[in-house]
Amino acid sequence: MGLKIVFLPYQVEAEVYEGETVIDVAMRVGIHINASCGGVGSCNKCKILIENGEVLGEKIEDIFYKACTAYPKTDLIVRVPAESLYDRRALLRRSRAKSLDLKWDKLPEPVLKKHYLELIPPTIEDNTPDLERLMSTLHSAGLKDFHIPSGVLSTLPYTLREADFKVTVSSAWDPFHRVEIITRVEAGDRRATNLGVAMDLGTTTLQLELIDLNTGETLAVTSDYNPQISYGEDVISRIEFARKKDGLKLLAERIRERFAVLVEELLKEAGKSPEAIGAVAIAGNTVMTHLFLGLEPRFLREYPYVPVAKFYPTYFSQELGLPLRENTPIYFAPSVASYVGGDITAGVMASNIAKEPQLTLFIDLGTNGEIVVGNSDFLMCAACSAGPAFEGGGIRCGMRATSGAIESVSIDPVTFEPMILTIGKKRAKGICGSGIISLLASLFRVGLIDRAGKFRRDLNIPRLRQGEDGFEYVLVFKEDSATGQDIVFTENDIENLIRAKGAMFAGYQILLESVGLTLSDLDRVYLAGTFGSYIDLEDAVTIGLLPDLPREKFFFLGNTSLQGAKKMLLYREKVEELYRVAQMMTHVELSTHPKYMDYYMATLFLPHTQEELFPSLKGGK
Amino acid sequence: MGLKIVFLPYQVEAEVYEGETVIDVAMRVGIHINASCGGVGSCNKCKILIENGEVLGEKIEDIFYKACTAYPKTDLIVRVPAESLYDRRALLRRSRAKSLDLKWDKLPEPVLKKHYLELIPPTIEDNTPDLERLMSTLHSAGLKDFHIPSGVLSTLPYTLREADFKVTVSSAWDPFHRVEIITRVEAGDRRATNLGVAMDLGTTTLQLELIDLNTGETLAVTSDYNPQISYGEDVISRIEFARKKDGLKLLAERIRERFAVLVEELLKEAGKSPEAIGAVAIAGNTVMTHLFLGLEPRFLREYPYVPVAKFYPTYFSQELGLPLRENTPIYFAPSVASYVGGDITAGVMASNIAKEPQLTLFIDLGTNGEIVVGNSDFLMCAACSAGPAFEGGGIRCGMRATSGAIESVSIDPVTFEPMILTIGKKRAKGICGSGIISLLASLFRVGLIDRAGKFRRDLNIPRLRQGEDGFEYVLVFKEDSATGQDIVFTENDIENLIRAKGAMFAGYQILLESVGLTLSDLDRVYLAGTFGSYIDLEDAVTIGLLPDLPREKFFFLGNTSLQGAKKMLLYREKVEELYRVAQMMTHVELSTHPKYMDYYMATLFLPHTQEELFPSLKGGK
Repeated sequence: MGLKIVFLPYQVEAEVYEGETVIDVAMRVGIHINASCGGVGSCNKCKILIENGEVLGEKIEDIFYKACTAYPKTDLIVRVPAESLYDRRALLRRSRAKSLDLKWDKLPEPVLKKHYLELIPPTIEDNTPDLERLMSTLHSAGLKDFHIPSGVLSTLPYTLREADFKVTVSSAWDPFHRVEIITRVEAGDRRATNLGVAMDLGTTTLQLELIDLNTGETLAVTSDYNPQISYGEDVISRIEFARKKDGLKLLAERIRERFAVLVEELLKEAGKSPEAIGAVAIAGNTVMTHLFLGLEPRFLREYPYVPVAKFYPTYFSQELGLPLRENTPIYFAPSVASYVGGDITAGVMASNIAKEPQLTLFIDLGTNGEIVVGNSDFLMCAACSAGPAFEGGGIRCGMRATSGAIESVSIDPVTFEPMILTIGKKRAKGICGSGIISLLASLFRVGLIDRAGKFRRDLNIPRLRQGEDGFEYVLVFKEDSATGQDIVFTENDIENLIRAKGAMFAGYQILLESVGLTLSDLDRVYLAGTFGSYIDLEDAVTIGLLPDLPREKFFFLGNTSLQGAKKMLLYREKVEELYRVAQMMTHVELSTHPKYMDYYMATLFLPHTQEELFPSLKGGK
Repeated sequence: MGLKIVFLPYQVEAEVYEGETVIDVAMRVGIHINASCGGVGSCNKCKILIENGEVLGEKIEDIFYKACTAYPKTDLIVRVPAESLYDRRALLRRSRAKSLDLKWDKLPEPVLKKHYLELIPPTIEDNTPDLERLMSTLHSAGLKDFHIPSGVLSTLPYTLREADFKVTVSSAWDPFHRVEIITRVEAGDRRATNLGVAMDLGTTTLQLELIDLNTGETLAVTSDYNPQISYGEDVISRIEFARKKDGLKLLAERIRERFAVLVEELLKEAGKSPEAIGAVAIAGNTVMTHLFLGLEPRFLREYPYVPVAKFYPTYFSQELGLPLRENTPIYFAPSVASYVGGDITAGVMASNIAKEPQLTLFIDLGTNGEIVVGNSDFLMCAACSAGPAFEGGGIRCGMRATSGAIESVSIDPVTFEPMILTIGKKRAKGICGSGIISLLASLFRVGLIDRAGKFRRDLNIPRLRQGEDGFEYVLVFKEDSATGQDIVFTENDIENLIRAKGAMFAGYQILLESVGLTLSDLDRVYLAGTFGSYIDLEDAVTIGLLPDLPREKFFFLGNTSLQGAKKMLLYREKVEELYRVAQMMTHVELSTHPKYMDYYMATLFLPHTQEELFPSLKGGK
């Protein structure tokens, strides 16, 4: 049973989640409390009065507590002081997408199967060679068509004789060639150990899980930055880097090395040996997949944007120089086009869109923005040239979502004073994606910017000023920042963001129109990636990044790319489904679509030129 | 039109082949002329009188010529002087097996095919990835089921764009997995160049040919010793060596290195680049094949004699570290048992035994002796533990068939003086296989040894004496030898040879009996290997090494292992035939066969205990 806080004068009651301070709860439920140090406890602005109950925290001016350091010990009645304006407008509607659990409770039928066989040992009457003896026993056990890589032969005679011709044979389904491959023969009964590694191969981050393929259980997780970042932050700059002498080789080596290190971490955490890993599944965008495989990415970028492959053959560990047992299969989720990759096909598979009749809009907004519209009948997809704005790229004080990044913002509608919270409650270094959306929405909501994204010029407040790049809003003054510099948000930043959200929104419209539908036909919106979990729906709708649909139609799915990679390992039918998804997906090239430019131009307002597309916002401010 | 010689007093007319001296012709047709220096011209024993015609050569004692230096310039009448005994017994019947040409004039349908494809270049409307574009064009061209090794992808985008999406695709048939494999994609039309390397992988020697797979033409040939000889002369000692630390690795490395060097030689001779080689076929015995592949040979030798594999998967160049283009397929002829290997299956395939109704005995007598009996209905095979005696192994003055080896011998039935010829007409260093057979037959024929292989003790001639190892015949006294030592032939040597020929003969009998047949049912005898080409049939029948059948039933086939390897490359149907042969062949384990010992014991006489098995020899001496 969680504690509760009632915020006065708003009469808003909210639950307290574990580890939350009073300001965390307030931000979450939309109660504005001035705060400019990000929650560090240094700005002394977030004064609250505890009218009832007890907190553990720092007092200020005898009677107040700092909301950012106050941890509820009992249920509380908290009054937000008059300075913070007694106005219902400070009460924002807040809503998050519902989380959708993609786990599947079906019993695993893993892509890598282990078969325990008791061969009849040879005699002089039957001295059939080892390989043929193994093959005929496999035949008898029901495995009819299979391929045996020659590497299996090297150890076969020893393995067979180690445990008196009792062996465990691993067979992997190769969806590319549609054949079963014998990947390993082990002495004795080794069915109990069957692990797999799933990886979301992101442009920015790598997320890995070590999975027990017998149970579906996750034994260890880890993540890290993609080390290729040093050679280029986004896919385009990496493609450029790959053109340098040995550039491609270098990029491939870096990512494979890091993968190896992370697998080692997983194994250490779970107390397992590399031998235990029987298969690996990787889902990444087309460029990242090409780079992992050392495939030329250049033509992905050059007109007419041709990938080397859509369906990747199954690779084996030694072909990629990975320190796993020889012939460990490495599966890559298939791509659709240059900028719609395996992370998306894996995500669509993981979220069952293609198995259900509901019309779904699937949005993966990471370093790039990819969208899918469809259901069990059809799947349309597109890449939106949104750029990395929503990850902080191209934004003056933008930064990645790491410690010290402002992740949520609220602005007082009268004083225009901000309330900010940073990741890790550190002094602010910059603004990350969620902070940016929240900031843009707040500025628009309180009227500091107009529908074109231009700041009001008639106010005389220190936070609004002419800066180097034109007009800007000072979110954190240098006294409170970690950098010793003002953290500002410029009209340029806003322009970039409007273009980015516009590219996304026009994408939704084109995809729907290409099948004769509109936004209102959507049964649900699936938000993939971390994006889906942190953004506030109201903020995102307010700026026109998400369509204005009933909020209960929104679901956040978490890392669907990783989920898809896991399902590839755990369920053979999911591998087939993934291939079907990739086959089904029709790619729409937005940049050359005849109507795209019109749609796009119309999005370059907040929330949109056509206000009727955003009915819930009317009169909202 | 060749020249002719009439030898007097025997009235034997013989044709002169190119490069032959008078003594060569005499030896070939069975005219005895004393000669103990091997043809060097130093012993001065081979005196002949030219009664008519002209020779180019050295005179001796004014009126004679040395037969070993006399080259006919016209037709000759030659008188062999009285010293060499005026006796019809000096007139031996000589006969060689007829040569059987295994070439096939069918148009090649090589195991590696090249397909020229003009792909439709991508457009923005059809930016199908490279791999899928290639695959669908292959489909349209009629190639439906194929596998693509992942390595092909690395260069695909460059290759496609190099000649405007016109490419040549190589596809190799993989008989093991029964699938077509795309091994290479080249820019432009490269059909004209399609080479293959065929190798006979022998325990002692390697024979290679570079073949044009479009025409079947042999572009270059080369041969060399198997470098593994340094680690053991026969298969058993190599298996032993492989048990040492890194022994197997070393043996595999040595043979692969040598293969690479020899391929380089072939390419240089033909003026081609390694790129031109599309496929390699290797036929070797089971042990040599295991060692080339780095497969444990130990269990081949240990009871119950189990090979790692019978059918070998198709290997690719990079898997064996061979300096050929990546994914060049390396085919190995399948084995039947530990001591009946790919050289035999390839030989049986090459000689069409399994396609014809005639009952055939196939004999491959190299470092080991393998035999096959069968026709289109059945094939029985066995390995005979003949040992290397017929290659000079285990024989006191035995040596391989290299320069200075005595290769043919005739003994005067009255004076017991020998006539010897050496390879390269050098002073004698020792006796090679053909010399050994010829010597043993001669000794028996002139009565110097009895049926048990024991020397007469009642003669008082310097050539027959008590030596270190017992009684021996001095073939060359040290004055005439290259070693400065007497070249002798001992009773021990004879015993070894009798055991060896006995093992072979008992093998023929067991194989035939196992299908209810006898030697007289044989329609023909095929002699494989160099053995078949050099031995004299009369000599081999005389000592009981070959059955006493009408001589026109004998055929020598040359290197059938190499012929089989070539056919694997040139004809897909031959690869299938080879697999069928290996499947059909029933192996009989002689060492544990209940009747083998009886048969074997009966062979330990010259020619055999049962004289009725050798009717043509009765009264011959």
